[in-house]
Amino acid sequence: MVNAGMTFPVSLTIQKSICNMATAFRNFKMVGYVIYGRGCFHQLDEILAPNRKGDAPLIFLLDHFFQNQPLSNRIPLRGKDELIFADVTYEPKTSQVDALAQTLKEKYGTISGVIGIGGGSTLDLAKAVSLMMTNPGSAADYQGWDLVKVPGVYKVGIPTLSGTGAEVSRTTVLTGPTRKLGMNSDFTPFDQIVLDPELTHNAPANQRFYTGMDCYIHCIESLEGTYLNEFSKSYGEKALELCRKVFVDSNEWTPACDDQLMMASYAGGMSIAYSQVGVAHAVSYGLSYLLGTKHGIGNCIVMNHLEAYYPAGVKEFKYMVEKNGIEIPSGICSGLSEEDFNKMMDVSLGMKPLWENALGKNWEQIMTREKLRDLYEKL
Amino acid sequence: MVNAGMTFPVSLTIQKSICNMATAFRNFKMVGYVIYGRGCFHQLDEILAPNRKGDAPLIFLLDHFFQNQPLSNRIPLRGKDELIFADVTYEPKTSQVDALAQTLKEKYGTISGVIGIGGGSTLDLAKAVSLMMTNPGSAADYQGWDLVKVPGVYKVGIPTLSGTGAEVSRTTVLTGPTRKLGMNSDFTPFDQIVLDPELTHNAPANQRFYTGMDCYIHCIESLEGTYLNEFSKSYGEKALELCRKVFVDSNEWTPACDDQLMMASYAGGMSIAYSQVGVAHAVSYGLSYLLGTKHGIGNCIVMNHLEAYYPAGVKEFKYMVEKNGIEIPSGICSGLSEEDFNKMMDVSLGMKPLWENALGKNWEQIMTREKLRDLYEKL
Repeated sequence: MVNAGMTFPVSLTIQKSICNMATAFRNFKMVGYVIYGRGCFHQLDEILAPNRKGDAPLIFLLDHFFQNQPLSNRIPLRGKDELIFADVTYEPKTSQVDALAQTLKEKYGTISGVIGIGGGSTLDLAKAVSLMMTNPGSAADYQGWDLVKVPGVYKVGIPTLSGTGAEVSRTTVLTGPTRKLGMNSDFTPFDQIVLDPELTHNAPANQRFYTGMDCYIHCIESLEGTYLNEFSKSYGEKALELCRKVFVDSNEWTPACDDQLMMASYAGGMSIAYSQVGVAHAVSYGLSYLLGTKHGIGNCIVMNHLEAYYPAGVKEFKYMVEKNGIEIPSGICSGLSEEDFNKMMDVSLGMKPLWENALGKNWEQIMTREKLRDLYEKL
Repeated sequence: MVNAGMTFPVSLTIQKSICNMATAFRNFKMVGYVIYGRGCFHQLDEILAPNRKGDAPLIFLLDHFFQNQPLSNRIPLRGKDELIFADVTYEPKTSQVDALAQTLKEKYGTISGVIGIGGGSTLDLAKAVSLMMTNPGSAADYQGWDLVKVPGVYKVGIPTLSGTGAEVSRTTVLTGPTRKLGMNSDFTPFDQIVLDPELTHNAPANQRFYTGMDCYIHCIESLEGTYLNEFSKSYGEKALELCRKVFVDSNEWTPACDDQLMMASYAGGMSIAYSQVGVAHAVSYGLSYLLGTKHGIGNCIVMNHLEAYYPAGVKEFKYMVEKNGIEIPSGICSGLSEEDFNKMMDVSLGMKPLWENALGKNWEQIMTREKLRDLYEKL
């Protein structure tokens, strides 16, 4: 089983999924408060009020996508509050977290809380900064499982893209000096999430699709996997059904699509508790490690070639790609060296629980290096 | 809108459902931790350990149904811990809560926590005792909305019957000196719930059905009602689907039925956040007030005669009653006086949000006293 001491990078979903299911069930830490509703963002000021500590400011981390967008004028700033645009061109780094926390500590001493508003990267950044306002050292010291020992400051997550499940997860995926690994702990989940489907309405269609597919692909992998119980199955089935309503049944992007995809993301995130991902994620981690391919698009690139493993899911995936007019990049492994391929395969084959979930205990007989190499060459 | 100051009794679901949906969405307080899995009850000792405060005991309230049952020997008692069998012949009373809290305070000063193990009444009793270990006065002082000002002691809910949703609700329904009304507050939800479907396997078939129908009927009422959003719809649809798997599709009671009904209850409870019940509950409150009819069976007695309001739901309900060989009591209103009928009708018609949810803004034109009287006479 993958653990915090491994030297391979491990990414979002696997970190959320680690639990010793053979002997014990995970005791799942829930977010503190959930508010869901069209337009509920306008209640944010009121929700935050009782969580202000004296004149210590609230820090709003807003996805830089919203610079000069109307949302940036709707942030309920009061007193010394600060609005910071978060550059999430790349997935968040421990150095970025450390620098941000250090600046805030120097400037304010203490803060009332951190509010992350954006996609999965922004939400993860907000969680990590919250924890590093109170935990000593570097975020890199806490990459792993249950290393965080002290609660962070009050933290709020407000997704503007649906699909990652980061709003309900107990991790925050960070690229550190030696590995890509989350701060997985019971102190990591948000104290409050604000689920307002109006906020996702203007997302770019490609990005929205890739992020939505993070949820869809997870559901296919976990529902067809060997690890599952009724809790995760119920949530996974609901998430899958909602993804289908949005990307298969609907002929245009309507407010109902935003409503449904936001619930799909939430349900997909909850389903992580007792399930595991599979082939698409295991292969996509190799891409992410070597090429820096972002999580959502990487999964799509791989899923596009997994007919042999998820025949019905891949057929439906391709239908959704076509119906929604999405482009899935191809040829991304052309020109890679022998060494590059080996590195990707090492990373991928290191994801043992994912392969075992997908292919059973004998997965090593099924997924040989030759087969995996063929797969990478197709991408 | 019903409020804490009304003199009519209001019962479980309405208290869970009050929110000013026209202008704002409820900010829903979640339980702290959830563990779900067959046999996870054996992790209880380990889960409780970090929540023990010095040698202050944990108090286990076990439904008296389990006296001399194997479960009573599986309670992980340590040190001064105490196992108390909770008499839930009647739904819990404020006087019962006060007496229990007083005894515990006199005996131990302080306690580490309360663990409720049983059906909805036992879970509600545990929540209320937890709150009354720290809040002064009587539980009756806190019947209403957001009157509780101080967190209770650590509290854990472990259902042994599925359907009430009490495991995730922010209320605890109590019969007080002047009214039946819950302690609705953000301090009311459990810190931890332990969802082990093995614990429901030996429940008596009738009781299991009535309690399961609490969930089914709620789903029909809320999904066909006028108050709803995608959060509550997603949870409600899932709960309904799971109820159907158990009571419609399955030809015998299997472990999968326990798994599914436990998730139905959880999902049904979560769906309360942004939905409302309807005719069955509104009419059944009258029975409960006058005759002390318990919640689950009362809803079944009423649902049996609601073809005019929920034709498809009632048809399916009757099919489930027959398929599962359940007896629904009848003739319970025969011999009641004019005054009795008037009292029941006053109570029922006081449930304005339920009627409005079911029949729309003009509900008073639709549900006349004559019509309601006819309905009560049929029960």
